[in-house]
Formats: sequence, C-alpha cells, structure tokens
Amino acid sequence: MTKTLAKTLSLAVNGDRLNQALEDLAKIGKQPDHTIKRLAFSTEDIAARTQLCEWMEAAGMTVQIDAGGNIIGRYPGRDPETAALATGSHIDTVFSGGRFDGSLGVMAGLEVIRVFQENDFKLHHPLELIAFADEERTMIGAKAMAGTALGDPERYDTVNDEPIQTCLERAGGDWNNLSSAHRSREDIACFVELHVEQGGVLEAIERDIGVVEGVVGQQRHRITIEGRSNHAGTTPMNMRRDALTTASHLILAIEDIAKHYPGDPVATVGTLQIWPNSINTVPGTVELSLDIRDLSPEVIAHMIEQLRRKIETVAVTSRTRIRIRPELQVEPTPASETVQSLIVESCEELGFSYTHLPSRASHDAQEIGRFTDMGMIFVPSKEGISHSGDEYTSPEQCVQGANVLLKTLLKLDRLYR
Amino acid sequence: MTKTLAKTLSLAVNGDRLNQALEDLAKIGKQPDHTIKRLAFSTEDIAARTQLCEWMEAAGMTVQIDAGGNIIGRYPGRDPETAALATGSHIDTVFSGGRFDGSLGVMAGLEVIRVFQENDFKLHHPLELIAFADEERTMIGAKAMAGTALGDPERYDTVNDEPIQTCLERAGGDWNNLSSAHRSREDIACFVELHVEQGGVLEAIERDIGVVEGVVGQQRHRITIEGRSNHAGTTPMNMRRDALTTASHLILAIEDIAKHYPGDPVATVGTLQIWPNSINTVPGTVELSLDIRDLSPEVIAHMIEQLRRKIETVAVTSRTRIRIRPELQVEPTPASETVQSLIVESCEELGFSYTHLPSRASHDAQEIGRFTDMGMIFVPSKEGISHSGDEYTSPEQCVQGANVLLKTLLKLDRLYR
Repeated sequence: MTKTLAKTLSLAVNGDRLNQALEDLAKIGKQPDHTIKRLAFSTEDIAARTQLCEWMEAAGMTVQIDAGGNIIGRYPGRDPETAALATGSHIDTVFSGGRFDGSLGVMAGLEVIRVFQENDFKLHHPLELIAFADEERTMIGAKAMAGTALGDPERYDTVNDEPIQTCLERAGGDWNNLSSAHRSREDIACFVELHVEQGGVLEAIERDIGVVEGVVGQQRHRITIEGRSNHAGTTPMNMRRDALTTASHLILAIEDIAKHYPGDPVATVGTLQIWPNSINTVPGTVELSLDIRDLSPEVIAHMIEQLRRKIETVAVTSRTRIRIRPELQVEPTPASETVQSLIVESCEELGFSYTHLPSRASHDAQEIGRFTDMGMIFVPSKEGISHSGDEYTSPEQCVQGANVLLKTLLKLDRLYR
Repeated sequence: MTKTLAKTLSLAVNGDRLNQALEDLAKIGKQPDHTIKRLAFSTEDIAARTQLCEWMEAAGMTVQIDAGGNIIGRYPGRDPETAALATGSHIDTVFSGGRFDGSLGVMAGLEVIRVFQENDFKLHHPLELIAFADEERTMIGAKAMAGTALGDPERYDTVNDEPIQTCLERAGGDWNNLSSAHRSREDIACFVELHVEQGGVLEAIERDIGVVEGVVGQQRHRITIEGRSNHAGTTPMNMRRDALTTASHLILAIEDIAKHYPGDPVATVGTLQIWPNSINTVPGTVELSLDIRDLSPEVIAHMIEQLRRKIETVAVTSRTRIRIRPELQVEPTPASETVQSLIVESCEELGFSYTHLPSRASHDAQEIGRFTDMGMIFVPSKEGISHSGDEYTSPEQCVQGANVLLKTLLKLDRLYR
C-alpha cells in the first residue's frame, strides 16, 4: 500500500469543525426569529461571500469570481493540466430561510479541502469549490456557467426588482462579459453537490443518504377559467357558470392524475385568484397556477395531455371557457450513473443506509449537469421542512453527508484519471 | 257603478312619465361607463334624496324623514284615522349599479300617486311612499322601521367606514332617536314593493310578473382549512396535507348539496383566500365563505348539517383541520298569502303572465314584513344581470310592473277597509 493510498483511506472530515463552520455562516443574516435572511446580492449575502472567500484562501484555495458572480475556490491537484473535479452549492437563502439549504454543500466542500490541506494531500485533479450566485431566484450563477442564461436582462426576476446587471456588479460579476463564465466538460470533468433533501422521504423510510437519480424537469402553467359572475342569491344553481366550482373540478383532476400516474410525479396548484371575490357573488373568473415535476419529460407531457382532455370535458359541462398557457419549462437533468454508483460504494464502505431518489427541487447541479457529469448526495431534512426557520438536519447527518462527499471525490479522482 | 269605482277601474300609470322619471333619477350619479354610483349617504345619494322630496311634494305628499333616514311621502286617504298602506323601495345603489334596482319601486310608487293626484283620487287609506335609507349595505332604514336595527353603532359596515351616526345625520336621520322610526301593523296595514328580479327566472320561463312568495333566509359561514404548507417539488403526493384540494372537495360538496336538495335552495362559495399563495408551495391554509339561502330555515339548517357531516369525513381523509363558523343569519320573511293572491288577480285582469317565486336577494320588504303584511312584485331582469351597468328591464316591463302595483294597491285598499 502506497503512502498516498493509506492516507486516502484514512481521510475523514472533522465533524466539529464542519458544524462550527455552518454555525458561523448562519450568524450572517440571522433574524430574531432564527430564520436566515441572505437574499442574493443583499448586504448579508455580500458579507457571507466575503467571509467565504477568506475561508477558501485560508484553506489553500486560489479564489476567483467569474462573470456570473460565482465564487470559485480552486485547490490545486497533482496534475495542474487536467480537468477539475468540482463540488459546491450556494450560500444565498430565501426571505425566511434555514441554515442548511445550500450552505451545507459549500461548508462540506470547504471542510473536505481543509482536511486535504491539513493532511498535505492533493487529488490528481484540481478540485474546485463553487458557491453559485443566486440559486434561490434567478440561478444566474449556475446558468452562466452552463451557458443557459437568458439573453434579455429584463427577464430576470431579482430580489427588489433590481436590474440583474447591478446585482452582478455588486457581487463582482459582469453581465456584459457573462459568456466568459461558461465552462465545459474539458474544464470540469465532474460535479458533485451535497444538499439537504428538502423533502421527507429519507426520514420517512429511515435512510442516512439519498443517491440522487437526477433533478426532475418542471413545467409551470397558468390556467384561466372564465364563467359568469352573478348574484349569489338570485341565480339558481342550474343557471350558474361558476368559475370556482369549475376550478375545483380541475384541482382535483390534477391531484388525481399525479396520484395515479405510475412512478411518483408531483403536481401542485399553489396559487389561486378569484374575481370578484365577493361573498354574495358567484365567482366569474378564477386563475390558478400548475407546477408539475418528474424525472421524465415524457411523463410530464403525458400528464399535461391528460389534463387537457379533462379540461375539454369540464369546460363543456360547466359552460366556462378554460385556457391553459405554459409559463416555464425546465428540462430534467439525469445524474451520471457512474457518480451514483460511486456514492453507493461510499455509503457501503462507511456503513450508511441509502436509497435512490429523484430531486424534485431545483439545484445548481441541474444546470451544471447540462454540460458535464453530475451527481448529488442528499441528507435527511427533519419532517421534510425547508425554506423555513424549522429546517433541520442533525450535526451527525451533516457529517455523514460530508464524509460521503469526501469519499466520492476520492473515488472520482481515481476514476477520471 | 259609483263614480269612484268607475274611476278606480280606469286608472293606469302614465308609462312615458314613469320611464322619464327613471331616466331623470339615473342622471344623478351616472358614471362615464353608464353605471350608476349613488352609494348610501354619498353626495349623489343626498342629491337624489333631495330631488325625490321635491317630486313627492309636487305629487301631493307631505314628506318626512324619520330617525332611520327613511324618506316618507304620505298621500292622504279618505279616512285619515286608519292605518296606512305603503309602497316603496330604495334609491341608493352599489358602487357600479344599474338604474332599476330599487329606483323602479320608488319611481313606480311616485307614478301611482301622480296618477291619483291628477285624477283627484284618494284611497280610503293614507298611502305612504317610502324610500328606505341604505338598502345596499346596512339596511339601516328598513331595520329602524322594523325595530330590528343593531344596538351597537360600531357594527355597521358603512361605505368609507364612516360612523353610522354621521351617515344618518347627513341624511336627516338621528341615531340617538332611532326607536322613534319604529312602526307597527296598527300604523302600516300592508307594504307592497315592486322590484326588478335581479335573477333570470322570469326571462327564462317567459313570464311578465313574479309573485314573490317571500324573501329567503340566509346564512353566511366562514370555513377555514388548515393543512400544511410544503415544498411543491419535494413533497410526494401521498405525504401532502393540501388545504386547496381539501377546499375543492368542500366547494363541490356544497354545490352538490344545494343542487340535489328538494326545492331550489342556493349555496355559493364566493370568496377564497389561500396561504402562502406561492406557485411552488403546497397550500397550507385556505379560507372560504359560504352563503346559503332558502325560504325555509329548516332547509338551511339541514343543508348546513349535511355539510358538517361532509366536513368531518373530508378532514379525516385529507388530514386537515376544518372549522366552520357562522357569521350572519337572516330569517326568511314569507309574503302575505292575501297580498300574493291580489297580485295574481291584478295580473289576470291586466292579461299579464306570472309565476310564483321566492326572492333570493335581500330587500327592504324583508324587514317591513317582520311587523306587517308584505308582498313583492317582480319584473324581469335581462339575463338576470344586476348590480351592473348592464342591468336592464324594458320600458314596457317597468310599466307592466307599475300597473300591477297600482291595481294591487286598489285591491288592498278595499280588502283592508
């Protein structure tokens, strides 16, 4: 056994240091109600980014910020000419976020490199730790890197409706030079992201680790139902063209389609607006949103087709006019089979239970996976709660995830050589 | 045949004058979009009230405003000692109202008395023409007269949230002396109100006149559904506690109960609010309103009981918490059988087709009917539209209704002698 291999086998993260780093990061933007507010490009986000850059440099990384506002810490490999391996996630949060969403992936990557540094250890490949810019709203960072960013700056729905140019500038990015952030498979051989599940599956079936099969695709539609608003007293039941009872039929049909479709797609009506919204008026118009996700684009397309057929019959029986308009379409990103198998090997070596599952939330990995091999490691979220101050993953679970990340990177380093 | 009886038989309204009066009244508060805005106690309402007082006096009435803000024009009878007959309605409108709702009843009563005056004719009874204050929101006028007004001035939801005291004062009423407006059967022997149907029944079955069986009772409830809000991507369908799909089950159950109940009750969910109302979040809380109306209080109570049973089972299957709280209860007011039969006789003599039907909208008559005999005459509303600039009843239909009112008053005069 070579000295390097022996060292490799004994490497493990420092759990206390990882959890301390998570706690230190959570201090930036912590609110009185213990939620974390580090909206992308806000003062808190910028403060956290500055802190991260310092930590990266202290851990032996050279730090760059690309035009997409991504912080890239590069830890040298034994072969500086070869493509990098990469890990990372994001440190921006939603308005009332938790301390694990995104942060765990970045702090775990930092911890892995700290372990390498203190052991005077280098992978064959350079290893990049990336904190992607604005994962929660625009995904501008990951999209700039994948070359999937929108060309029209007006179409970015940023916090406070600030121009995306201004946002990027504040973070050290550069809208006018965005294409310079574009990377390729020759550049990044593989990307692995550790993240909290943000769902309740791992907890429910009592597994330590989720081996992500891919990030689901997503379609969003807007459904508008036009009936006729009328007096709630004087309009007999059989003369009504009630947009809300019609909407109810559709909402239940959507639930039914998702529940009974083979596999486990999800479909949600999350918003509903009603006009005139008056106690004594039969609702004339209802508008609702549909969000539908699955690993297979064919499944999503077929579910939409089932819904369209239902809409046709419901419109006739309810004497309403129903329109469905697509608003967003995100293609699914499958995880690399190879990376999945290396995560499984790592779990088995570490004695952790695991399951395969799709990621039904969006992640930076879904964009990075469009140009190179991608894998994701999930750890459990208590009660599946996320985007909330109640988001919780135990210190032990965070450490388990970080050790799986470390082992997987070591295996990838051997594989991609 | 006495001279009086001969004159009685030949009396008929002047249709052109009636429609001109409707048009003149509609000028006050007319908006650029042709809707009428004469919100109770507003400048426009006060202007219309002043105009009405002038017209009443010119038609031989003595005019008083009672403490409830009601304008009472009294046309003398041959026996000044006997109880009065009364007719009337209201001249206030909703925000974007039509020109017939309320106004027709007042202008038709005015036209009847103009006919009496120009024919130098008096009934045996004094005849009161009443324009009730604020029918559209508080019904303060009719309620003050019936002695059913609320004691707490804070509970009046007036336009602009002005204190009811201030509103009444502006109209010549007096909150502190409200009980002085209270009338009794000894005082008003019978009240007949002509009104547009505000529904589509008469038009649908092609009848000239609706003989109202009574004003329906009404209950309003607020239903709150508490599920759990969660990530729309990461929460599998079978782990959801979706407040909106649960609401959909209830909305359809409410429609089903009303549609299949014997008779023709109506039940409406007119408002719905949803939290957090976010495209990618499973709805956690939904609040909705229920408005339920029927001539029989037992029917309403039984429908609510059916709904409560449904709620119990839906709460279990959806794992949500559902509460239903009563917010308003209005007892039904049956119309006098005698008045109904005189309206029928009048229709038959005039050659008008008619049908019996309940009034499912509120009217001043519902309060006046709590202390004396009450009857209502409906004329068709085009497409059942009301509270809208599209409200329409043809000039001929208005004249038909006014002639039925005239004939019915003549018959009542003989009957109650």
